[in-house]
Amino acid sequence: MQSQFEPASGTRDFLAAEFEEREQAFEIIRSVFQRYGYEPLQTPAFERLDVLLGKYGEDGDKLVFKILRRGEHEASGEADLALRYDLTVPLARVAAAYEGRLPSPYKRYAMGPVWRADRPGRGRFREFVQCDLDTLGSTSLMADAEAVLAQHDALAELGLADFSILLNSRHLLRGLLEVFKVPAELGTGVLISLDKLDKLAPGQVVAELTERGLGEWEAGELVAAMTAPDAVDRVRAALQPSEEGVAGLDEVDGLLALAGPQVPPGRIVFTPRLVRGLSYYTGPIWEAVAPGVPGSIGSGGRYDHLIEQLGGPDLPATGSSLGVERILALRPSSSVLQRGRLDVAVTIMDEDLAAASFGLAAAARAAGLRASVYLGASGKLGKQLRWAGEQGARWCLIYGHREQEAGLVKVRNMLTREESDVPAAEIGSYLSLAGE
Amino acid sequence: MQSQFEPASGTRDFLAAEFEEREQAFEIIRSVFQRYGYEPLQTPAFERLDVLLGKYGEDGDKLVFKILRRGEHEASGEADLALRYDLTVPLARVAAAYEGRLPSPYKRYAMGPVWRADRPGRGRFREFVQCDLDTLGSTSLMADAEAVLAQHDALAELGLADFSILLNSRHLLRGLLEVFKVPAELGTGVLISLDKLDKLAPGQVVAELTERGLGEWEAGELVAAMTAPDAVDRVRAALQPSEEGVAGLDEVDGLLALAGPQVPPGRIVFTPRLVRGLSYYTGPIWEAVAPGVPGSIGSGGRYDHLIEQLGGPDLPATGSSLGVERILALRPSSSVLQRGRLDVAVTIMDEDLAAASFGLAAAARAAGLRASVYLGASGKLGKQLRWAGEQGARWCLIYGHREQEAGLVKVRNMLTREESDVPAAEIGSYLSLAGE
Repeated sequence: MQSQFEPASGTRDFLAAEFEEREQAFEIIRSVFQRYGYEPLQTPAFERLDVLLGKYGEDGDKLVFKILRRGEHEASGEADLALRYDLTVPLARVAAAYEGRLPSPYKRYAMGPVWRADRPGRGRFREFVQCDLDTLGSTSLMADAEAVLAQHDALAELGLADFSILLNSRHLLRGLLEVFKVPAELGTGVLISLDKLDKLAPGQVVAELTERGLGEWEAGELVAAMTAPDAVDRVRAALQPSEEGVAGLDEVDGLLALAGPQVPPGRIVFTPRLVRGLSYYTGPIWEAVAPGVPGSIGSGGRYDHLIEQLGGPDLPATGSSLGVERILALRPSSSVLQRGRLDVAVTIMDEDLAAASFGLAAAARAAGLRASVYLGASGKLGKQLRWAGEQGARWCLIYGHREQEAGLVKVRNMLTREESDVPAAEIGSYLSLAGE
Repeated sequence: MQSQFEPASGTRDFLAAEFEEREQAFEIIRSVFQRYGYEPLQTPAFERLDVLLGKYGEDGDKLVFKILRRGEHEASGEADLALRYDLTVPLARVAAAYEGRLPSPYKRYAMGPVWRADRPGRGRFREFVQCDLDTLGSTSLMADAEAVLAQHDALAELGLADFSILLNSRHLLRGLLEVFKVPAELGTGVLISLDKLDKLAPGQVVAELTERGLGEWEAGELVAAMTAPDAVDRVRAALQPSEEGVAGLDEVDGLLALAGPQVPPGRIVFTPRLVRGLSYYTGPIWEAVAPGVPGSIGSGGRYDHLIEQLGGPDLPATGSSLGVERILALRPSSSVLQRGRLDVAVTIMDEDLAAASFGLAAAARAAGLRASVYLGASGKLGKQLRWAGEQGARWCLIYGHREQEAGLVKVRNMLTREESDVPAAEIGSYLSLAGE
């Protein structure tokens, strides 16, 4: 491809096969979320700059695509708008804008592109689809359980057989910091280091923790409690002296009791070492992982104060986000899509038969089939049959003067090469039946 | 709404009902276009600035949203990217990028937002959906006829009963200029004035034409030929001395012969005064109009050199564009959407029954229904029934300790208020049958 015709760096063109594959996945996700009673919300591609800036930290702000002011203000070189960076800040804006007029709780899903000026790389794009569901206005653990289950069902219906949902609680983690006597000012740093236990060896994490100022014994015990084969039991026992830790355990157990029976055994796994990078989580947290796939294919958690921090009302909130681009990269190409673009290809054997051939294509469409007439210049049957083959058509309708005189259409099965003569008036119902 | 929480000027938030109404319309359009064998194409929201600028004329360029350079280059105040202004320039880029690897002819549709920094007003937005179908690589009049018919069928399936498709040809218009002896240098201006015949009185247009330098007699005759009750016959007769005019007539007659039989009589109307504003059309042109609706609800035409002018290969092209935002404003709200968000509302009568209620909701979802449990804090049945009503649920499932002991679920029909006891294990199939 000549570079001047490539899409802009980090963006993609989706031609038919890939577009349909993606749409099919989006449709599955939409259908699951809707069955859970989440309702759709679509916000604009851009927001006012002040709505977005300052919400993603300094590093995030740098990745926001800013839109130049227009007209006489263009020369100022200033921006007044920006492309949305995620779907959560727009949700907070909508929650503020429609305060008191949204259903309570407000269960919404959103699916659409977001834009980040990240360095493009393998599987990392500047325009990519996010897919979120959130419940605003409920403190109930059931809202968390629904968010976990809807995410689970979406992954299952997308055809992922082998995945787990790791579950933990921020309360539980804070309880751990308490019982292992981690000084308050080290807490966030310690959690950041513990979050690396899925990538680094336990010894490396212990070293990081002591570098952060944690005692060697505490660091070793903390990492051992989270990585031992009996980590779950050790953490349960260790947490007993901490009120917050026990509350976190109750959250985990409550979620397992609500969501566990709805999914295959062992699908949801209490995982004490799960931290989740984002600082805004306040309660249960979860992450969907699949063997052999680095990173997560979905995540979520409770974030009770974020909506207010983002400029919205002070609403409790919980939600899940599917890593839909990563999941799309995992899915096998659907065989249905290989079938081709057309069901029915209609020949044009003579210019004066073109209107009749249009009628045949219309009859096929009325039967719900994809049909097109031959648009090339050749009147040769061989060439038109080759075109029908290239289109992946199941049938080719041949209608020449001989067929016209007999009131028939020759229907060629492109796979078996069998040909049948069908009365022209019955072509729609014939194709309907043949297609079943 | 407090203004700081409104979406950016000229953009809109779509909450559930409106989103679903729009999606339903888009789905109808997609389905029609696919049945015609047009395949989907999705391009990024933004393009490199040089791909877009200089393609829409000076006035168009001013309406392009430009994206500021990032990082160290941000301070330059320069832009390097821009939001797409239409779907045609991206199509030209894709045709160039994939030259030789796209099907030939390439029949594609595209549907998605475009962005224009127009002054927002009633029915005029800065973010709005365009919906185009085009055939690249065919000079056949059949490609034009398909574009007219696919547009027609989409309008019809969207439920518009009363609309017409006005048809004309640029060749025919040039033939008219020739026989009415319009000097070549006045041609474009004369067409621009004639294009106003649907808004201005014939006398006003005659005055404009003479101001442009046309003789009074020629201006009067030209306008009379196009507006008389027998305009079609007068134009047919007048055009006979012009080779290009006769070729244009043949285009119109050919299109009527191909497309006319597929649509209700009188739906496609040869309209000599139809000009279409855009300068790039080269052959047949058309416009869909509905009584009482100012402007068009769809349009199209052949534009054989535009793809090359836009930076693509020199491919003949023809296509239609649906005025989908205008059509959406015309459609009556679907009664289906008033039904509400949920099919099944499930009570939580006691915390220790929550997991079982989750199971009931899961069974309803497995039957394809939208189901949610009550997420509020109240254990009172009255309050939960009120919530079920607000959700528009058809059924409320009540599962308390009494029901648990009997192995039953109380199913309340929210419309009739009738209640039935259903074995818990059969709830999915019960709801499936009841929903039919």
